[in-house]
Amino acid sequence: MLKDIKSNPKKLVADWQSLMRTFIRPEDDAARSTLLKYMEQILFGLHEFLRTKVGFTEEQPLKELGYRFTDTCLNENPEKKLADVITDLIEDIAPYAVNVASPYFVGHMTSAIPFFMVHLKTIVAALNQNVVKLETSKVVSVVEKQLQAKIHRLIFQKSEDFYREHVQNAETTLGTFIEDGTLANVTALWVARNKLLSPKPGFGGVEAEGIHAAYKAYDIDRLIVIVSALHHYSIKKACGVLGIGNENVIAVDMDDNNRIDMEALEKVISQIRENNRTGILAVIGIAGATETGTVDPLKQMAMVCSRYRVHFHVDAAWGGPTLMSAKYRHILDGIELADSVTIDGHKQFYMPMTCGMVYFRDPTHMDSVRYHSNYVIRPGSADLGIKSLAGSREAVSLVLDSALKIMGTQGYALLIEHGIETAHEFADEIRSRKLFQLVTPPELNILTYRICPEPMAEKLVRTKVEERYEINERLNHINMSVQRMQREAGKSFVSRTTLTKGRRNGEKIIVLRSVIMNPMTTIEILRQILDEQEDIFFSSFRSLDI
Amino acid sequence: MLKDIKSNPKKLVADWQSLMRTFIRPEDDAARSTLLKYMEQILFGLHEFLRTKVGFTEEQPLKELGYRFTDTCLNENPEKKLADVITDLIEDIAPYAVNVASPYFVGHMTSAIPFFMVHLKTIVAALNQNVVKLETSKVVSVVEKQLQAKIHRLIFQKSEDFYREHVQNAETTLGTFIEDGTLANVTALWVARNKLLSPKPGFGGVEAEGIHAAYKAYDIDRLIVIVSALHHYSIKKACGVLGIGNENVIAVDMDDNNRIDMEALEKVISQIRENNRTGILAVIGIAGATETGTVDPLKQMAMVCSRYRVHFHVDAAWGGPTLMSAKYRHILDGIELADSVTIDGHKQFYMPMTCGMVYFRDPTHMDSVRYHSNYVIRPGSADLGIKSLAGSREAVSLVLDSALKIMGTQGYALLIEHGIETAHEFADEIRSRKLFQLVTPPELNILTYRICPEPMAEKLVRTKVEERYEINERLNHINMSVQRMQREAGKSFVSRTTLTKGRRNGEKIIVLRSVIMNPMTTIEILRQILDEQEDIFFSSFRSLDI
Repeated sequence: MLKDIKSNPKKLVADWQSLMRTFIRPEDDAARSTLLKYMEQILFGLHEFLRTKVGFTEEQPLKELGYRFTDTCLNENPEKKLADVITDLIEDIAPYAVNVASPYFVGHMTSAIPFFMVHLKTIVAALNQNVVKLETSKVVSVVEKQLQAKIHRLIFQKSEDFYREHVQNAETTLGTFIEDGTLANVTALWVARNKLLSPKPGFGGVEAEGIHAAYKAYDIDRLIVIVSALHHYSIKKACGVLGIGNENVIAVDMDDNNRIDMEALEKVISQIRENNRTGILAVIGIAGATETGTVDPLKQMAMVCSRYRVHFHVDAAWGGPTLMSAKYRHILDGIELADSVTIDGHKQFYMPMTCGMVYFRDPTHMDSVRYHSNYVIRPGSADLGIKSLAGSREAVSLVLDSALKIMGTQGYALLIEHGIETAHEFADEIRSRKLFQLVTPPELNILTYRICPEPMAEKLVRTKVEERYEINERLNHINMSVQRMQREAGKSFVSRTTLTKGRRNGEKIIVLRSVIMNPMTTIEILRQILDEQEDIFFSSFRSLDI
Repeated sequence: MLKDIKSNPKKLVADWQSLMRTFIRPEDDAARSTLLKYMEQILFGLHEFLRTKVGFTEEQPLKELGYRFTDTCLNENPEKKLADVITDLIEDIAPYAVNVASPYFVGHMTSAIPFFMVHLKTIVAALNQNVVKLETSKVVSVVEKQLQAKIHRLIFQKSEDFYREHVQNAETTLGTFIEDGTLANVTALWVARNKLLSPKPGFGGVEAEGIHAAYKAYDIDRLIVIVSALHHYSIKKACGVLGIGNENVIAVDMDDNNRIDMEALEKVISQIRENNRTGILAVIGIAGATETGTVDPLKQMAMVCSRYRVHFHVDAAWGGPTLMSAKYRHILDGIELADSVTIDGHKQFYMPMTCGMVYFRDPTHMDSVRYHSNYVIRPGSADLGIKSLAGSREAVSLVLDSALKIMGTQGYALLIEHGIETAHEFADEIRSRKLFQLVTPPELNILTYRICPEPMAEKLVRTKVEERYEINERLNHINMSVQRMQREAGKSFVSRTTLTKGRRNGEKIIVLRSVIMNPMTTIEILRQILDEQEDIFFSSFRSLDI
């Protein structure tokens, strides 16, 4: 789009003719090959960076990086041509970004994705449909509804008749796409809130009249949400946003396997039910806790919820795709009894950022969040924006639909089984090394452990509370330091988090956390990560009195 | 990823070795050229479709399309190779999608985008950073903060010192990205709510304790939001979600130019202020109404809000980028006095779907929506997820940052000025044709008009209310039919909406709505669209007694 002024090549000027050219699909071979060359630059220029680095090194510390990005004036004239922008992104940005695709990057739920995902995302961008309404998406909305039925079926396993009735039904809604898992959880609790505080004679419903009027109409002072202490922080955020108050998230203790303690759960519910001024908005089961990867006893929870008639939401943002593995789907048994389920595409469906989804067992539940407007999404239309927290939406459903066709559920199963089985091998490796202590064994593909030298481990068993507290403080310092030093070295990355050990009066312990979803992450690589941690420890802490 | 079984080419099986290959960046030339060939297929295969059709034809009606997408079983084995998936998308999906890039598609706020946007989006997908935290984005979060400061400066025009202090400040927040404009509006009102009902002695704040406790603590029964009747439906949705109640959106009348009636606004505010059991959450100014493109008198509104100490939010999802045009930015005068501003990237920044943004004049306002977790976004870190409605986020900021470098604000200004000036020419053209009536003249680049044959137009002026109602009913029927028939013919697309004509006891009239943002949409094309509407009208309605 830039005028090429040969006499003064540095001066770029915006002009109409070149601007127009950026909107025209190229007709001649020369223009086409230029466009393709840019794509080549993108696909392979990032190559070197992606092959060698984890990227979160301190070579160029954040603070220094900050100094480089402080100009806050928008340029009136073009600064750069597309080719130069791409070069800058490859040479100046990518090296200081994080190589989440590295098999040594096992710290977070963001990982490598198959190369074809980039192609699929490119198609979605080129089509640029807006799924809020049929008039800007047409068949793409139809495909989205079909895909939603497929994922709903994966979760809820209803009958063929059920899906035949609902798959392209303009009136009913099996689920919705939304930016991410946080907003999927918000959507689930929004629907549950509106269902619970629905319209009745003399009251127009909480969506119309608000929380204050709703509590009056239903004669309550408070709504609570019950979930294990391992819940994602989005649950609190959802309750804050929805006007419930994030203090009203009741965090129930876990059992020794980091699953919600069923006895404690029932106790909380029955206590609340004695107080008829407090309502229960939802009980939430976790299918793949962010910190430990553990899965709550969903079936038991569903039974309790059904008995007390409480909305049962399952946060399967992480663990949901495990349902595609015949070998491990039993871990999520009971999810089919949930009222709503969150599941993320950019996690274990290996999609690019971002794709949140929420599904409802009952296809009428989302009716409580209907919105219309004059110019679009009119009543009775099949516009997907009628029941959705967001308005304009990217057609990421095309990416997931295509990926499922290319991989098959069996392809996904192989990835998921690799993660779980490698995590178990890794746990064995940690157990076999004297310097380490496995803190939470993997149920899915996440585990936590810590550095805990034998003398300290022995002391911890023998000693009294106060002294244990002191030892753990020292261990916390060690683990935090080793994690940081390893990250700064830039070869590999595990994350750290703080867990509460023991059920009550538990000590806070800092642990190292590994998420194993990259199929290139082998047990050999994980051994190298432990080796490096040992090296860091022995060179930094050996002299200490431990 | 698929095993190539020559003897049985139809049977695809997922296996580990080929699966792994989809995660490896190709090293040899053959593999690289295959990847590139797919991109070629994507970039140019869509070409034919994009050149010829608007796409929302009834050639294949929605209902029929629905019948084709009803299989709801996920395949265990791969169904298709990437090349076939791409072919299917190009040959079987794209022709039934909507060609929003056509210059004849002037019905919605989704339009053509410059080709380089697709390249930029591809880079973002290939890097796959998650901007929720530094550990999965590093420099990309730094670039995002810089870009936010640039857009903040475009809107609020604070001093160089101000931006130097905040551009890379980990403690303060100038704004946030979010999926779309709806969620940007939700974010703005979420922050305003938490600011208004903030913690005080004996009360932990609305975010912690919820709406019911907050109203008690602040001695109110109700919060309202005041906005003109032309507000986007997301305002009601936001108040529903946030627990305020969507009935508590007070829609104020417009003046003859479709701007909020300032007298009516002041009257509402002063009446509410007399009732000390009702609080005002926010007054919202519209900068580019979805239906008419009109802009409220932002400066006057800001002054009133400042006098009454009310949060002033501006929904500039559509009109915000007009600030880049020196010629027309005055239309948005006063936006710099807003407390918060919504602005969309996928609208007049010509980005692919989707990119919502919200900015706050005061860099501490977002402190009221802080959330932390143990494993990421720890207190004190510069993680962007600390103050954000969403969690995981795509780095769309890289697309906008790069686009601004390639286009310059001057490039954007040319596009915006073309839209506004072409809309004015179009208005003249409509005025000059006897069959049409201009209903809302363009202020920015949106206008509405309707078919209104001269005899009926004359009658409307002379006649009494009851008869006018009847004539308008007939006109509504005509306009709805012509719009539908034109859409179904598949050559061009204008949308329709329902406006209330006259300030009180107004009749509902159906109008045709044109949004002119595609630089390829010339006055000549718009004349053709009118010609086609005339043709449809004269062939379908001439025989009627009008």
